[in-house]
Amino acid sequence: MTAPGPVLVIDIGGTKLAAGVAEPGGRLITWAQVPTPRVTDAEQLWRTLESLLCQVLKTAKVAERGELSGVGCGCGGPMEWPAGRVSPLNIPAWRMFPLRDRLAERFGGVAGQAAEGGIPVRLHNDAVCMAAGEHWRGAGRGRRNVLGMVVSTGVGGGLILDNHLINGASGNAGHIGHVVVDPDDGPVCACGGIGCLEAIARGPALTAWAQEQGWRTGQPDVTGQDLSGDAAQGHGVARAAMRRAGRALGIAIASATNLCDLEVVAVGGGLSQAGALIFDPLQEALAAHTKLDFARQVRVVPAALGQHTGLVGAAALVMAGHMYWTGD
Amino acid sequence: MTAPGPVLVIDIGGTKLAAGVAEPGGRLITWAQVPTPRVTDAEQLWRTLESLLCQVLKTAKVAERGELSGVGCGCGGPMEWPAGRVSPLNIPAWRMFPLRDRLAERFGGVAGQAAEGGIPVRLHNDAVCMAAGEHWRGAGRGRRNVLGMVVSTGVGGGLILDNHLINGASGNAGHIGHVVVDPDDGPVCACGGIGCLEAIARGPALTAWAQEQGWRTGQPDVTGQDLSGDAAQGHGVARAAMRRAGRALGIAIASATNLCDLEVVAVGGGLSQAGALIFDPLQEALAAHTKLDFARQVRVVPAALGQHTGLVGAAALVMAGHMYWTGD
Repeated sequence: MTAPGPVLVIDIGGTKLAAGVAEPGGRLITWAQVPTPRVTDAEQLWRTLESLLCQVLKTAKVAERGELSGVGCGCGGPMEWPAGRVSPLNIPAWRMFPLRDRLAERFGGVAGQAAEGGIPVRLHNDAVCMAAGEHWRGAGRGRRNVLGMVVSTGVGGGLILDNHLINGASGNAGHIGHVVVDPDDGPVCACGGIGCLEAIARGPALTAWAQEQGWRTGQPDVTGQDLSGDAAQGHGVARAAMRRAGRALGIAIASATNLCDLEVVAVGGGLSQAGALIFDPLQEALAAHTKLDFARQVRVVPAALGQHTGLVGAAALVMAGHMYWTGD
Repeated sequence: MTAPGPVLVIDIGGTKLAAGVAEPGGRLITWAQVPTPRVTDAEQLWRTLESLLCQVLKTAKVAERGELSGVGCGCGGPMEWPAGRVSPLNIPAWRMFPLRDRLAERFGGVAGQAAEGGIPVRLHNDAVCMAAGEHWRGAGRGRRNVLGMVVSTGVGGGLILDNHLINGASGNAGHIGHVVVDPDDGPVCACGGIGCLEAIARGPALTAWAQEQGWRTGQPDVTGQDLSGDAAQGHGVARAAMRRAGRALGIAIASATNLCDLEVVAVGGGLSQAGALIFDPLQEALAAHTKLDFARQVRVVPAALGQHTGLVGAAALVMAGHMYWTGD
């Protein structure tokens, strides 16, 4: 038996396409990213991705066929899992696009189990990959019960319980963004529900709320970063907006902790970079709602792997499949 | 190799001690129960349990040693798991009582793995056993992602995800009663948190709320059963109380469904017997908060095994340990 070869890893989001080559153990030998093209043609987007993948393989001096031991991919949801037909909310060009099959055809793998001459090609939700990455090599390393979260344009996540990635009925476990935090007076969520965490804590919801309260009224393209910048400067409404988001995060994390007996919650994504402005109210709300002895043990920490967490998680699907992969 | 023998099964609650003998497959050959003695002496309570266990073994014509293939036990929490030192909230006589070790000493087992001449003795939270029972042989049979709930004096539960019982960091996964459903205006929970499901939907909380609203004011010993009886008769406040509880249950179940991608939620316990009075508002709130395609698939159903669900679940810990047991 020869040593396992490197794994081609991919992270597909509405803003950027990232790819890399990971060595056994998860370290990235090389990586690169390009902005996600604003195209409507599925094949055009595929060709952009394909050329990015060929580029990182070339940089890493890894042959397209024969040297790879697998392909791991995270992609924005929703998707059919484990079939890997993807319809990413923020990538209109792909609707039921057979991404897993296309990767398997192109890069020598056979979808699913390694077959004769084939290598495993595995795909999961990008937030699930982030959670796997943080559990495997990041803030949740060495813990058995971890929630990984991405707080950004949306609020997503993935669950590792009893040291195994949880998929749920259709691969959708981990949707912390739709835990209900304000059922009575909360805003309507994009999903159609009322008072979901995401409806309050996603970046655009935060800035919209702040504008309603008088912050930079009338300015069109304000971002969560503008908001946290102003909050850091002491702007009252901006600070209130961050408190509101932090509190909603704390309540949802408390519910998840009480239900799942979590040890660590790793929070990543743009908004998590606001630091104490978000984490202080988060911890306060969390403490108010985790009073049982076991639940008080939970630690909420920033994600540790930064922008590479999705790629490392994609590697984990292949390199540590006993923990992170139960699909076909 | 001989066929596996019967399993001694036990369900310990604040109201009753139940025990039985289960044949491989989970069917109860015999069972019996006695009221939980109101004693303060730990050994006196143990002797009552011991004599109940000897009685069911005798009835089933199973020798105390040599014929059993294991002992499974559910007990009210909290407890140290998997060590099995129990401190049931409603049984003051036992505080850190080494129930698992005592059962192992007395009934021929060795705590944990079957050792030379020993048989497995396994113990878990009673609500967790209920969930295991409903997944193994009840309303969740054949499904891989199930939440089992007990709505009674408290609100407890257990989680089966990806076809495995989830323990969490300390064996406390499944605490659906402390999912937050009303963080702003909810009552303070016995745990110290605010707006927990249990603080609203447990029987005593329901009757207390109804009395505050004018139902049977001044009567001391009213029960949840009185309340649901009056609700069935059309009493306005009683109906409002059931709606309030049903709605809280629906919100918490929605959060759990969105987070864990559940297929079936099996609801047992006294209050679940109120039928449509509870289930109609529950389903309404659930529908309002599960709008994502995957989450809409969840079914909430009454538990199927009735009063024996805890005993069947205790049998599952031993007879289907590959799904329900990861303790030592």
